[in-house]
Amino acid sequence: MSQYPVHFKFPGRLVMVGFGSIGQGVLPLILRHIALPPERITIVTAEDLGQQEAAEYGVKFIINPLTQENYRQVLEPLVGKGDFLLNLSVDVSSIALVKLAHEKGALYLDTCIEPWPGGYTDPNVPPSLRSNYALREQMLEVRDAQKGGPTAVITHGANPGLVSHFVKQALLNIAADTSVDAGNPKTREEWAALAAKLAVKVIHIAERDTQVANTPKKVNEFVNTWSVDGFVSEGCQPAELGWGTHEKELPPQGRRHEFGRQSAIYLMQPGAGTRVRTWTPKAGHFHGFLITHGESISISDYLSHREGDKVVYRPTVHYAYHPCDDAVMSVYEFAGRNWRLQDHKRILNQEILSGGIDELGVLLAGHKKNAYWYGSQLSIDEARKLCPHNTATSLQVCVAALSGMIWAMENPNRGVVEPDELDFRRALEICMPYLGPVVGAYGDWTPLFDRNRLFEENLDKTDPWQFKNVIV
Amino acid sequence: MSQYPVHFKFPGRLVMVGFGSIGQGVLPLILRHIALPPERITIVTAEDLGQQEAAEYGVKFIINPLTQENYRQVLEPLVGKGDFLLNLSVDVSSIALVKLAHEKGALYLDTCIEPWPGGYTDPNVPPSLRSNYALREQMLEVRDAQKGGPTAVITHGANPGLVSHFVKQALLNIAADTSVDAGNPKTREEWAALAAKLAVKVIHIAERDTQVANTPKKVNEFVNTWSVDGFVSEGCQPAELGWGTHEKELPPQGRRHEFGRQSAIYLMQPGAGTRVRTWTPKAGHFHGFLITHGESISISDYLSHREGDKVVYRPTVHYAYHPCDDAVMSVYEFAGRNWRLQDHKRILNQEILSGGIDELGVLLAGHKKNAYWYGSQLSIDEARKLCPHNTATSLQVCVAALSGMIWAMENPNRGVVEPDELDFRRALEICMPYLGPVVGAYGDWTPLFDRNRLFEENLDKTDPWQFKNVIV
Ligand SMILES: NC(=O)c1ccc[n+]([C@@H]2O[C@H](COP(=O)([O-])OP(=O)(O)OC[C@H]3O[C@@H](n4cnc5c(N)ncnc54)[C@H](O)[C@@H]3O)[C@@H](O)[C@H]2O)c1
Ligand SMILES: NC(=O)c1ccc[n+]([C@@H]2O[C@H](COP(=O)([O-])OP(=O)(O)OC[C@H]3O[C@@H](n4cnc5c(N)ncnc54)[C@H](O)[C@@H]3O)[C@@H](O)[C@H]2O)c1
Repeated sequence: MSQYPVHFKFPGRLVMVGFGSIGQGVLPLILRHIALPPERITIVTAEDLGQQEAAEYGVKFIINPLTQENYRQVLEPLVGKGDFLLNLSVDVSSIALVKLAHEKGALYLDTCIEPWPGGYTDPNVPPSLRSNYALREQMLEVRDAQKGGPTAVITHGANPGLVSHFVKQALLNIAADTSVDAGNPKTREEWAALAAKLAVKVIHIAERDTQVANTPKKVNEFVNTWSVDGFVSEGCQPAELGWGTHEKELPPQGRRHEFGRQSAIYLMQPGAGTRVRTWTPKAGHFHGFLITHGESISISDYLSHREGDKVVYRPTVHYAYHPCDDAVMSVYEFAGRNWRLQDHKRILNQEILSGGIDELGVLLAGHKKNAYWYGSQLSIDEARKLCPHNTATSLQVCVAALSGMIWAMENPNRGVVEPDELDFRRALEICMPYLGPVVGAYGDWTPLFDRNRLFEENLDKTDPWQFKNVIV
Repeated sequence: MSQYPVHFKFPGRLVMVGFGSIGQGVLPLILRHIALPPERITIVTAEDLGQQEAAEYGVKFIINPLTQENYRQVLEPLVGKGDFLLNLSVDVSSIALVKLAHEKGALYLDTCIEPWPGGYTDPNVPPSLRSNYALREQMLEVRDAQKGGPTAVITHGANPGLVSHFVKQALLNIAADTSVDAGNPKTREEWAALAAKLAVKVIHIAERDTQVANTPKKVNEFVNTWSVDGFVSEGCQPAELGWGTHEKELPPQGRRHEFGRQSAIYLMQPGAGTRVRTWTPKAGHFHGFLITHGESISISDYLSHREGDKVVYRPTVHYAYHPCDDAVMSVYEFAGRNWRLQDHKRILNQEILSGGIDELGVLLAGHKKNAYWYGSQLSIDEARKLCPHNTATSLQVCVAALSGMIWAMENPNRGVVEPDELDFRRALEICMPYLGPVVGAYGDWTPLFDRNRLFEENLDKTDPWQFKNVIV
């Protein structure tokens, strides 16, 4: 990128809510790729984190933690018709902000469906209602009630977000490599039919973050390459997965919801306490955490193929996340504390050593060529070269958020949209220059590989891709 | 220790088999506390590891890996009547060396019952026979067949080893603090009766190693503060625990052995894949790995209290090991590799940063004052000051091995003895100066603490110390 393409000349104002690892990473991208002078940007956040960077870029910085009580009062003067509300905070309800943006006629984007504090972890709320499934159902009700209006792109970071576009590209690639005529799928039904035709049984969002810092994790400290608060709250939600039609039995801890689309199930245990087997090209096979994520639910719903009213095909979809080693260790300690957060938090950035990568992609498996991973292998070194204030982890999220913002500006009247409904080619086009090597690779690994060796295990050998074989 | 006490003037030769983290740590202690000139010491080991240190101390160094085929040929010229055979290796059968020492009239000590290669992990051997329970039964058969002879102290490091002495001291302390007349227990029966009288339900060997290095763990590297080979092989054995009489139900993966004393059970899964809840005074509550260890089996057997032939009391005894953070991370990666060892290994020593400790002790619980931990909180800084070539982890092991050697020299005709049969006061006397702060502390923690919060858990609330509540 010797010259940075300016994708859109935006005439409105931009309000950014939250300015943590993602907010700070996305601001330089916005200023680079959207014609929007910094004077028209305001940050509303909860603390002084990033204040210096905001000043450096000439962006207004307001410290005023939003609450259910004050958010209208704080945001109303800042958001009007034709403006953009970008939510990159924790603990601020996405649904509240979507409604506000809709009322005001402003565009909107977030990178996850965030509830007000406690929404993920209030023990007085039944687990089924602490799920991303429930949050999505609520959000889709808002969408249906609003019937269109200004575009509000929800859950559009790397994952959820970018990975929905990876899935589509991967489906086309597998079709091409297995001599299946993919046609030119455009609608949800066409994509679902293609996935069914290819017989993709499972989709893992398979991520291995190998970034390490020069300063070791301390006792009683939670370390991560992105929001600690974000990670621990999703990690304490029930593990959730889109539940495929090939699955023979619910896992022992598995439960169905009593409402909604029924495309997903949840487990009666936190995702940060649930490990699954997965594979990426560089890492090989490894264990990841089955952290609940919006994409597990939206992708499996999007790819549900129906005959009449009956779902005849749906893939099992879930996240399999190996965060950076310090975060794995932090999760181990966190579990030992009965899921009470450590007293100290640290988000790695400057202290990350050269050499680590964030290998993030989608593993589509069970088809003719077994398993296909498609995704980004961005390194910390390349991320630093590509854009200031970023790591390999944040840049994948930030450029995806940027691409969603641009798509919203280009398509300003679509109402609430999930990543699966965006133009995946346009999104990928904007993201590609920032993703490092984007590779597709087939592998012969299955969750039955090298099992049953030291101890007898309860496996389904007739179908490697049963979830029973995947869970640890 | 302004002057080092010389505990014994040893007239024979010493052969050390293996010279890794423990061998190198114990040599300076031997030279300091036993009158034995270095010219009479020979090291037989498998590689050049430690060669420089051996030379520095003027000790002969032979690289010649022992095998089932060559061990007699290599060792016979080096071990005769009145000599000492010290086994600090991995992959060399303790039983073979015990027999050899017995034949030759030499004293013997090891720090675990080691089998020939594969003994821990040969998938063709049933799990019950890959257990420490089986190894101990074999060793006790050798003992019974030998009917005395030169003393062979088995499994006498920190744990197994020193912790058996901690248990006795802890029993006396609890008795004193709960106004129970302990008498002056000397025999196995008397100690068992005391434990029964105090109603100690469980004994955890509860260890939290907080040592960290300045160089982060790499991908595909197993890092530990002592033998990587030793740790991964015991970690791949079935999880094992002395099985208390208060336990109501066998865990789902639990199995009984079909032979032997029946004081212990095993789980159909590796210890490195089994986590338990425990507590130490400095760390508070945390998760440790239930790695099988000799002490779980010997202590629970030793403390079995009988009326007639019937065991009316036995505590549940197991290890709950939180190794250093890099080792926890290494175990996580190792599990993801289906228990195939990483290609690179590193034992931390010089690169350990100031500040870490190895908090190693015994947690006796279920009695009148709930839970009592007694043990060592040795720091890396103090260990380095106390003895060269040591860390907090190795020094606890090395001084315990030294104390066992001295006891064997002082009591040269006891045949095969387990730690529980040594004079615990003498052993502690020798060890104390090297253990840093040795503390006893009561705690009100139980495995029911803060449970059942985010998700409903299957607990036995009528008895906190059921193993069902302890396992994660
Ligand atoms: N989809 C994805 O790929 C993806 C990836 C990473 C992060 N995220 C999401 O993006 C969000 C931000 O992540 P991050 O790593 O930048 O988090 P962070 O913890 O680094 O920063 C959070 C920011 O939110 C602000 N904040 C907290 N409470 C607030 C309140 N009440 N009002 C206003 N601001 C408040 C904080 O001051 C901080 O600036 C999180 O919700 C996270 O889950 C999504
Ligand atoms: N009871 C305890 O508290 C305790 C604690 C730590 C270690 N240990 C035991 O002590 C032993 C040594 O531990 P470490 O940390 O020093 O191990 P290490 O891996 O650092 O060293 C092992 C040594 O054994 C040697 N060796 C390997 N194969 C051999 C062979 N065939 N013949 C001769 N020598 C051979 C190696 O060359 C090396 O010198 C292990 O068995 C371990 O389980 C016991």
